[in-house]
Amino acid sequence: MNQITAASTIAASPLEMERFADQNTPIVRDCWYVAGFSDEISRDILARRILGIDVALYRTLAGEPVAVRNRCPHRSFPLAKGRLDGDVLVCGYHGMQFDPSGRCVDMPSMPIVPTNANVRAFPTAERGPLVWIWMGDPDHADEALIPDTSWLDSPEWKSVRGQYHIASDYVAMHENLLDQTHFPFLHPGTVGTPEFARSKLDVRREGDVIVIYRSLKNAPPPGIYGVPMKLMDRKVDRFSEARFVSPALHTAYASVTDNTDVEAGPRKYRFNITHLITPETQNSIHYWWFNSRDSRLDDEEADTFLRTASEQAYLEDVEALEWISETVNRDVEPQFDLSFAPDKPGLLMRRVLFEQAEAETARGY
Amino acid sequence: MNQITAASTIAASPLEMERFADQNTPIVRDCWYVAGFSDEISRDILARRILGIDVALYRTLAGEPVAVRNRCPHRSFPLAKGRLDGDVLVCGYHGMQFDPSGRCVDMPSMPIVPTNANVRAFPTAERGPLVWIWMGDPDHADEALIPDTSWLDSPEWKSVRGQYHIASDYVAMHENLLDQTHFPFLHPGTVGTPEFARSKLDVRREGDVIVIYRSLKNAPPPGIYGVPMKLMDRKVDRFSEARFVSPALHTAYASVTDNTDVEAGPRKYRFNITHLITPETQNSIHYWWFNSRDSRLDDEEADTFLRTASEQAYLEDVEALEWISETVNRDVEPQFDLSFAPDKPGLLMRRVLFEQAEAETARGY
Amino acid sequence: MNQITAASTIAASPLEMERFADQNTPIVRDCWYVAGFSDEISRDILARRILGIDVALYRTLAGEPVAVRNRCPHRSFPLAKGRLDGDVLVCGYHGMQFDPSGRCVDMPSMPIVPTNANVRAFPTAERGPLVWIWMGDPDHADEALIPDTSWLDSPEWKSVRGQYHIASDYVAMHENLLDQTHFPFLHPGTVGTPEFARSKLDVRREGDVIVIYRSLKNAPPPGIYGVPMKLMDRKVDRFSEARFVSPALHTAYASVTDNTDVEAGPRKYRFNITHLITPETQNSIHYWWFNSRDSRLDDEEADTFLRTASEQAYLEDVEALEWISETVNRDVEPQFDLSFAPDKPGLLMRRVLFEQAEAETARGY
Repeated sequence: MNQITAASTIAASPLEMERFADQNTPIVRDCWYVAGFSDEISRDILARRILGIDVALYRTLAGEPVAVRNRCPHRSFPLAKGRLDGDVLVCGYHGMQFDPSGRCVDMPSMPIVPTNANVRAFPTAERGPLVWIWMGDPDHADEALIPDTSWLDSPEWKSVRGQYHIASDYVAMHENLLDQTHFPFLHPGTVGTPEFARSKLDVRREGDVIVIYRSLKNAPPPGIYGVPMKLMDRKVDRFSEARFVSPALHTAYASVTDNTDVEAGPRKYRFNITHLITPETQNSIHYWWFNSRDSRLDDEEADTFLRTASEQAYLEDVEALEWISETVNRDVEPQFDLSFAPDKPGLLMRRVLFEQAEAETARGY
Repeated sequence: MNQITAASTIAASPLEMERFADQNTPIVRDCWYVAGFSDEISRDILARRILGIDVALYRTLAGEPVAVRNRCPHRSFPLAKGRLDGDVLVCGYHGMQFDPSGRCVDMPSMPIVPTNANVRAFPTAERGPLVWIWMGDPDHADEALIPDTSWLDSPEWKSVRGQYHIASDYVAMHENLLDQTHFPFLHPGTVGTPEFARSKLDVRREGDVIVIYRSLKNAPPPGIYGVPMKLMDRKVDRFSEARFVSPALHTAYASVTDNTDVEAGPRKYRFNITHLITPETQNSIHYWWFNSRDSRLDDEEADTFLRTASEQAYLEDVEALEWISETVNRDVEPQFDLSFAPDKPGLLMRRVLFEQAEAETARGY
Repeated sequence: MNQITAASTIAASPLEMERFADQNTPIVRDCWYVAGFSDEISRDILARRILGIDVALYRTLAGEPVAVRNRCPHRSFPLAKGRLDGDVLVCGYHGMQFDPSGRCVDMPSMPIVPTNANVRAFPTAERGPLVWIWMGDPDHADEALIPDTSWLDSPEWKSVRGQYHIASDYVAMHENLLDQTHFPFLHPGTVGTPEFARSKLDVRREGDVIVIYRSLKNAPPPGIYGVPMKLMDRKVDRFSEARFVSPALHTAYASVTDNTDVEAGPRKYRFNITHLITPETQNSIHYWWFNSRDSRLDDEEADTFLRTASEQAYLEDVEALEWISETVNRDVEPQFDLSFAPDKPGLLMRRVLFEQAEAETARGY
């Protein structure tokens, strides 16, 4: 647990100094995580580690995504090295066959099918360009818990996207995403303006969701939105919000409102950024992102600009997180990081992650 | 220890569910293992890890193989980085000299030879194309225990050979060799015929040797023997046997009998496959193999066919074993592999390995 | 602790058989170690691990060397990935600023500077071509303890130099440097003559300094000095001495005196070799060396000869130490190295290192 020594003297309202998740806290398992972009999962079996467990991912002939443990219950052969026979996954070692529910439907060397020889299957669900997976208690795998990302396949929005593998923990990643004070230092070229950085940031906790937001009237637009929307010569009203939605998802919303044309009325440009974070292991994560907009949908120049700017900014985050993780993991002397008032959103999120992990530990996970 | 849950319900005679070796069981040490092909060991000192211990291997001027610990008793310099002076191994750091028995015969910086400064020597014995080594209690190193491989240097047999380094444990390797139900799945191109796979397989334990065997009358020959012996147009009588001889050795014997020429009488073709397995560490093995035949000895086309087919089949085994080992070793959740009736030979072998390891532990190894 | 079984029977005066440092002994921290050549430390921030701790090294505008922990106290970002603003080190993540004493002088996201947010600074001192650092208790960092290496920047001496990174421990390195019995075996081409190797070697302990020395009258010069000084056709008087000065420093001194010209009197050539040893971790070291002479200062041919011969000899030591370290660290069976009378200097040094480490442990390090 990290020491919050500075907070009590510096923050207006002191943060409690206990029970915040860090890189050693058990990963929350009862959660829908992204298993991959929809087009990553196909009739070619994909092996991917998720929450430390090898998973084999494929689609049925009807196109349903299937996820089973990538380890035959007989002799531990990785099932993703086998082959598909219709909807059935055939082990490459002894030809044992499993249906999409993980039930063994044939063991060629046996006269009868062994009834107890099943492989663990994980609930999956497809939503637009994403396949979600539930690695926790299957009795809790309620699809109603899958968070909303409906803008990703709405015709009113246009998205660019990308993905990274990151040698860091998901706690540090989420903290980075709830932290805007690093923008001018880590992303000097792309994100943020001095005016906006100085504006008041509000934070609230809504259940297990953490929200930060700020607004600013009559200010220059940030380059990342102003350039592709061709607004750099104007003053705009700005609003932005970022949300820790779940251990698997962080979303950011921004709007830029142009009031120049009094006759036509305000023209609002909206942006959604979707960060999908799936722990591969305790110290590494799969990361997918989307940058979505509701304006200039067919503008390929805007696509290119937003993709390039996002890739650069997220790569700067990836590098920073990996440098930190390497530093923390190899240091012979532990360090208790100091926290300050602007760290409050991240600390609230770390408290949520701690409480969720603690509850799972109490349930015997 | 693995759980044999399925066996009791599925196997005709239930297997006992306890005490089977797996990848974590201590390696049996009181056993003659192969140190190398004879022509790997020469006047150039060879460093090779065997059962976790660095060994320096060389030959005396008279050609006798010598094996000593590859670590000087003075300052731990690897002796294989030194040089030979006649039969004497000279350390490259301070010139300390050891005779083939490991006795120090000179320490240049000392006026007298230190009597206690010996390096551990390991008993070795050469048999045809193999040099054997005994890593266990030297008082037990009886050369009569070296298993018979006399066909490897008999003029009545012709062999092709090869070797692999495998990132797996020797238990999984021996289990693979006693298991023929994987042939149609892992080796679809090379090994086995459907008729033979369906024929009855018998298993017996003879002391610490496990034997499996089967026979079939008037059947098509398998391609691996039928093609090089030019028998693919005939029906033959077949017999095959595979033996776990010791932790170091698995042999397979097959015969194909052609009864076509009634006048001349039956013509029998015999094959011996010799698998030599030496643990490098708990999780890696040195592996040498020979494919020997008693017919068409001078047929170079048969040599090439048998070498190529063997290399391909064993490489498929090597890859499977390495995938399994990687899967098992990195998984965050342990798995107790299920076993079925066809696994009986492997389980009997794993019981032998367990009993031998247990006996050595009891003796204080 | 190593077993000194041979010493009691072979050495003239038995060595006590306890309490000698080895590769597992905690590294002595209260000591001035070299952080780098002076010209390695500049306005470009250098990251270097010293005693297991990541250190960021740079110079102020006035040229003073600065060393701080390479880990921001806020979110563990490696400070060497940040930038300099005058004398101030600016973190690349949130722009936190630290002065050369490690005191936080600005936190851009905060209205006031947090008074407790400092980074640990390490005392440094520059002496000629070396920057020294004190990783231990700062209250003990007395610059008077920096050992003398004044010949390195004296106009009466000329030096060649080099550096290596070594995957070995500093105990083995110091033992190698106090050991001359390895010269004819590990360095057959460069160091030592048979006559000198046979001459009597004296050893003494002076406080925590270990000194070995020997002399020889009217003998051939060693090639390493005789060739560049053009003395190979003469007989000379020789003296040599080697000193374990501290955990960070070993020095060697040699003189070669030419008495050929009776009229002009004896002509003495002096040489200093300076070995600077800084543990990077428990099992790796930074190593810098100088070969200095008081004669033929402007002879570039002598420079080249001495640099090349030194590089070769030290590379032979580096390789030997790395082979030994690899052997020791991966062996499944521990070995207690035997020691003999010629090992006495090394054992005395290892006793000093043990005592110093023990004293620090007692003080609660």
